[in-house]
Amino acid sequence: MPGVLRCLGMGPGDPELLTLKAARVLSLARVVAFFAKRGRQGHARRIASGHIAPDAEELRFEYPYTTEIPVDDARYEPALKAFYEVSARRVADRLDAGKDVALLCEGDPFFYGSAMYVFDRLARAYPSEVVPGVTGMSGCWAEARLPMTHGDDVLTVLPGTMDEVGLAARLAASDAAVIMKVGRNLPKIRSALRTAGLADRAVYVARGTMPDSRVTMLSELADEAAPYFSLVLVAGRQRAR
Amino acid sequence: MPGVLRCLGMGPGDPELLTLKAARVLSLARVVAFFAKRGRQGHARRIASGHIAPDAEELRFEYPYTTEIPVDDARYEPALKAFYEVSARRVADRLDAGKDVALLCEGDPFFYGSAMYVFDRLARAYPSEVVPGVTGMSGCWAEARLPMTHGDDVLTVLPGTMDEVGLAARLAASDAAVIMKVGRNLPKIRSALRTAGLADRAVYVARGTMPDSRVTMLSELADEAAPYFSLVLVAGRQRAR
Repeated sequence: MPGVLRCLGMGPGDPELLTLKAARVLSLARVVAFFAKRGRQGHARRIASGHIAPDAEELRFEYPYTTEIPVDDARYEPALKAFYEVSARRVADRLDAGKDVALLCEGDPFFYGSAMYVFDRLARAYPSEVVPGVTGMSGCWAEARLPMTHGDDVLTVLPGTMDEVGLAARLAASDAAVIMKVGRNLPKIRSALRTAGLADRAVYVARGTMPDSRVTMLSELADEAAPYFSLVLVAGRQRAR
Repeated sequence: MPGVLRCLGMGPGDPELLTLKAARVLSLARVVAFFAKRGRQGHARRIASGHIAPDAEELRFEYPYTTEIPVDDARYEPALKAFYEVSARRVADRLDAGKDVALLCEGDPFFYGSAMYVFDRLARAYPSEVVPGVTGMSGCWAEARLPMTHGDDVLTVLPGTMDEVGLAARLAASDAAVIMKVGRNLPKIRSALRTAGLADRAVYVARGTMPDSRVTMLSELADEAAPYFSLVLVAGRQRAR
């Protein structure tokens, strides 16, 4: 009997925003796998501290690149593909040995999560379960105390890496928007928001629900100030009820 | 000193998908307020069972309408507006008496949540806190074991109440989509998905993470079978990595 792969959403950063289910599954796991940036503990592993059994085996998957080189660098995709391939094989080894594996993932595992690349490789061959989590964007709009979507609002989630014309068009067709991967893309994002007439409503949030979180109107933020993992939020029409 | 208003996300339905923080805040709350449909316990209150202190005061806010009349019926908006006004006043009474109030909300409180209409009325006058929760859509794509968004996917969240041309245009401009408020809108949603070339990829999920959940390809669902609170999911491009 092979083990069960369990993808666990770890929430946006505050360890108390873990679900009861994720905490229970974690505490029972004999094998805990997680992704981390080179030389860092990793957000997911940090959130999990205090729930992992002392004698559990830990599998640490260290990204070959995160923001060291641009995503369109020729080295990026092949390195990431090989990385997920090896990570999936290490998980499969444990599953083959009959051990259940808890695979940690920041936020929600199926919403822009790295765990999906392992799940995609193994879900047809092994039993699996997915435990949803609080997304980073929910953590950010809660931190900003910004009600995002009311009634029939259309919400669009956009990568800041998209070209300016595409960004502006999708912003104009939305009531509410979340723009991710801000970083170097901030001047372009600002310009697209201006084109869509939304620049004055945009709120910038970094590290929502973490101790060093930052919330400010985007108009008050300097262009060079945004880390890659920060968000821009445009709340919906706030239908007056 | 006035009390603190705490808006608590209760998650998508499975009581174990409550966060540790929401469970702690709930167990300490002297006043617990929640919304419910007429004659029903209410999902949020059901999820909260087992965490509410036995001697806590409960404020039950019963919707004048949910799906009994269409949203565009002339009676709908005035009744809802009056309802939120009265609900906010009842919460404010307790806050004025120095009592903290935990206001429950299914899913995430700031993502299409009723709690926002109370928050919108009181947040300027009283101290408040927002505890984000796992959204209904996260619960549904976890239930469907459907990885939703990879890498640079654009995700659009759409109300099924929107006109067909608007739906089709926004679907065509997205990589991944969530369509809410399905119910009577199902034939129109199907047609819009067909126009956008996405009909074959659409997955239908009702009551995700609840014991009576249902997951099926949309193409295999009869037009009359969808309750209002169900979702259609179109997963992103599944960038092969």
